[in-house]
Amino acid sequence: MVSPDSDPLPAAGDMDVAEFRREAHRVVDWIAEYLAHPERYPVLSRATPGGTRQALPQGAPVQGEAFDAIFADFERLIVPGLTHWNLPGFFAYFATSGSGPGVLAEMLTAALNVQAMLWRTSPAATELEEVVLGWLRDLMGLPSSFGGVIYDTASISTLHALAAAREAAIPAARQHGLAAGPQLRVYVSEHTHTSIDKAVILLGLGADALVRVAVDERGAMRPGDLAAAIAADRASSRLPMAVVATVGTTSSTAVDPVAEIAGVCLREGIWLHVDAAYAGVTAMLPERRHLFEGSERADSLVVNPHKWLFTPFDLSVLFCRRMDVLRGAFSLVPEYLRSTEQTGVRNLMDTGVQLGRRFRALKLWMVLRYFGADGIRARLTEHMRLARVFAGWIDADPLFERVADVPFSVVCFRWAPPGGSPEAQDSLNERLLEAVNASGEVFLSHTRLNGRFVLRLAIGHIRTAEGHVARAWSLLREHARRLSQPSSTSAIPS
Amino acid sequence: MVSPDSDPLPAAGDMDVAEFRREAHRVVDWIAEYLAHPERYPVLSRATPGGTRQALPQGAPVQGEAFDAIFADFERLIVPGLTHWNLPGFFAYFATSGSGPGVLAEMLTAALNVQAMLWRTSPAATELEEVVLGWLRDLMGLPSSFGGVIYDTASISTLHALAAAREAAIPAARQHGLAAGPQLRVYVSEHTHTSIDKAVILLGLGADALVRVAVDERGAMRPGDLAAAIAADRASSRLPMAVVATVGTTSSTAVDPVAEIAGVCLREGIWLHVDAAYAGVTAMLPERRHLFEGSERADSLVVNPHKWLFTPFDLSVLFCRRMDVLRGAFSLVPEYLRSTEQTGVRNLMDTGVQLGRRFRALKLWMVLRYFGADGIRARLTEHMRLARVFAGWIDADPLFERVADVPFSVVCFRWAPPGGSPEAQDSLNERLLEAVNASGEVFLSHTRLNGRFVLRLAIGHIRTAEGHVARAWSLLREHARRLSQPSSTSAIPS
Repeated sequence: MVSPDSDPLPAAGDMDVAEFRREAHRVVDWIAEYLAHPERYPVLSRATPGGTRQALPQGAPVQGEAFDAIFADFERLIVPGLTHWNLPGFFAYFATSGSGPGVLAEMLTAALNVQAMLWRTSPAATELEEVVLGWLRDLMGLPSSFGGVIYDTASISTLHALAAAREAAIPAARQHGLAAGPQLRVYVSEHTHTSIDKAVILLGLGADALVRVAVDERGAMRPGDLAAAIAADRASSRLPMAVVATVGTTSSTAVDPVAEIAGVCLREGIWLHVDAAYAGVTAMLPERRHLFEGSERADSLVVNPHKWLFTPFDLSVLFCRRMDVLRGAFSLVPEYLRSTEQTGVRNLMDTGVQLGRRFRALKLWMVLRYFGADGIRARLTEHMRLARVFAGWIDADPLFERVADVPFSVVCFRWAPPGGSPEAQDSLNERLLEAVNASGEVFLSHTRLNGRFVLRLAIGHIRTAEGHVARAWSLLREHARRLSQPSSTSAIPS
Repeated sequence: MVSPDSDPLPAAGDMDVAEFRREAHRVVDWIAEYLAHPERYPVLSRATPGGTRQALPQGAPVQGEAFDAIFADFERLIVPGLTHWNLPGFFAYFATSGSGPGVLAEMLTAALNVQAMLWRTSPAATELEEVVLGWLRDLMGLPSSFGGVIYDTASISTLHALAAAREAAIPAARQHGLAAGPQLRVYVSEHTHTSIDKAVILLGLGADALVRVAVDERGAMRPGDLAAAIAADRASSRLPMAVVATVGTTSSTAVDPVAEIAGVCLREGIWLHVDAAYAGVTAMLPERRHLFEGSERADSLVVNPHKWLFTPFDLSVLFCRRMDVLRGAFSLVPEYLRSTEQTGVRNLMDTGVQLGRRFRALKLWMVLRYFGADGIRARLTEHMRLARVFAGWIDADPLFERVADVPFSVVCFRWAPPGGSPEAQDSLNERLLEAVNASGEVFLSHTRLNGRFVLRLAIGHIRTAEGHVARAWSLLREHARRLSQPSSTSAIPS
């Protein structure tokens, strides 16, 4: 409904600029209050299924409405149904950050609304992407033989990497398809991210193409087993297409031995893709660099600035040493997109499934400049220090146990009160997780390692400080104590 | 460099909230000025290849920098290298709009930074997506048997549609791949968008799988030829997998006869995907609805609110009548993403290649509410009126000719001065296009139809008014006149 004091919306044109300015200032103030008062919001939403849906009208309004009415509904109906990824008590999955400079950049990106599919459709967007990916590549210590492309998510970066691997393995597939071709094989570990499974299925290889190589007791792929699996497949006339090595697996942040795997791949002529979506940024730190050794011989590597580089969703980077193959897999230029600069400039549509692309480089540029390389390193180092502090508390408490190394900023642990079957302990840990998350102060997630239910505390939000981690730990202990008592259904002390 | 009067950036934490507030207000004022003064910017960037790249430092700064220094560089180095998609003189490709309410929503999306991969990772984001896609579906007159999913681009929506079609055609492919399977076939016309080609290649079918069915003199697929092609393939033991019908092709906005094609697909049991990425929104208009007849029997349909529905990049919608098949092609839930609400709620990761997803529904909701259904219809109607006005000017001028119908808001035309070979005329049209675009006032693009170079004027930006279209026309005539003169290299009158 148009509020009585506002003019009726004209039948053409956009929101009036003066109105935009006024409402945008209001939105900015709301955002500043939001960031200043995380305590006002439960991190994990307390919404019940269907709640938001039922609160909204079934149909679009016929007449336009005043922005203040829409914004009031946003506050009243939408915000309570959000899980607050951008608050410092967020410890689930991998913590992410919409940092200040990143949000400022996104405001400009939305207003400019440029599309960098061709160089000419925004030369600066294309060239800034090249420059800023050069910065990131150098910071991570990758050689300049790697080109880079920004995609939306690691799932899409990985899909492109594996599509390029397929192009390299059987170039005829682009034209003739896979129907008459060999059985292809992609080697992963049981800890490899499911985006690889999805990519392999999408590419037409079938889930059968995934070979899960055994891992050692720390969750790292065994290169000897990889070599044996490849040999067995070759003996059965299957065609090894790619190996995916992970630095920082999703469950436990385990590290596959990239250098040894790269040796196998080079000997065998197989595409090596390194999944460093989460942990790749730590290659900027001299004391972590060794974990990436061998990456310089990889064919491709994915790292997500929208995970642990303080850049708002979405921005994933694929570094690739064989850009010609990537272009070979994807380039296709219809007449309506031909431009006079066809040669001599880079057209980003040539390396993507997606034709349209947001101007994502701007936010990464602003984030890298605002914090600077040293500022980024200091924040990563601090997050890893916080993870070690938390791991120390776990290790010192006989009622808890840590179940994985902490090479980065994620701690895997469980509550292990004496007595009780493994299944009973699993169930206790599930209840503990629910209780802690219900507090609204923090949000942790879980995984399973060696069949057991495991809690995960993932540090990575830019405003997370030691106090937030300490609060998570005291909530865990309080709720564990309460759940240990005979009448554990009593009210939760807050 | 940190400016002398600012505090050094602390080694942890985000930009201070007070600083964020101050800088965000400054960015808002910049955006308001930008929108208020389109005349300050050439629509098509005048940057030269490498210009932006060379103006930027080769490496990331070691120390963090003050935001005002970064913003000054944005204005000085980046803005001149942008092609201004969000200004009213943009008539190239398909015109798009970052409208006021859409930009306001994007500011909130960036600051909240929520990820709606699972219901619990933001219930309201998941449910708002359902609600707002229900609104859009109803406005477009599609039956409620269609579910919807928001993706980033039409390329990705189409990829999902064709992946679902593959799942329906050979369910065993998900597990076993395509290697031992039949030759699949996908039927398109010569005007079908290249995203279909890319999807077919990516899915492992090979470009050979594309069958280009003949079109009539208006660029519409001939259903009789489609049926014949399918019969021929069946006779050769090939397996017809999908037909893509387009309502509003990219070159000339031609309309395939969806109802007749749907009849063929139903008889043959083949997946029908309707590409209405650009023109789909006009199904909201009673006088255009007939062009979509038959869509209700399609299996899937893509429409891009980021094209002609005033929503900032990126937001593409796939409507699908067989959501179970789509889920069957993509659902895959690792332990670390299992949640207690596994049943009874919708987890958007189950229908996507991409695991991470921005909170895109918010901007579509705000745009639909702010303008209202009638306001949207009025704007679409006005854009189509402007296209007819421009087409009328072309038709009335003996030196120009219109080369396609104008069913929506795109006019295809060429300068056709008497005499000269077709090739010479093509070259004149190329020069005319370059000259008009070099004015900076407007940006038009081109295509080829029946082998001839054709100019395209695409109306769709929310602030484009009759004056902008008239200016495009007078620039075209001025430059045509100038280019006709013997010494056509003389200075361009501005």
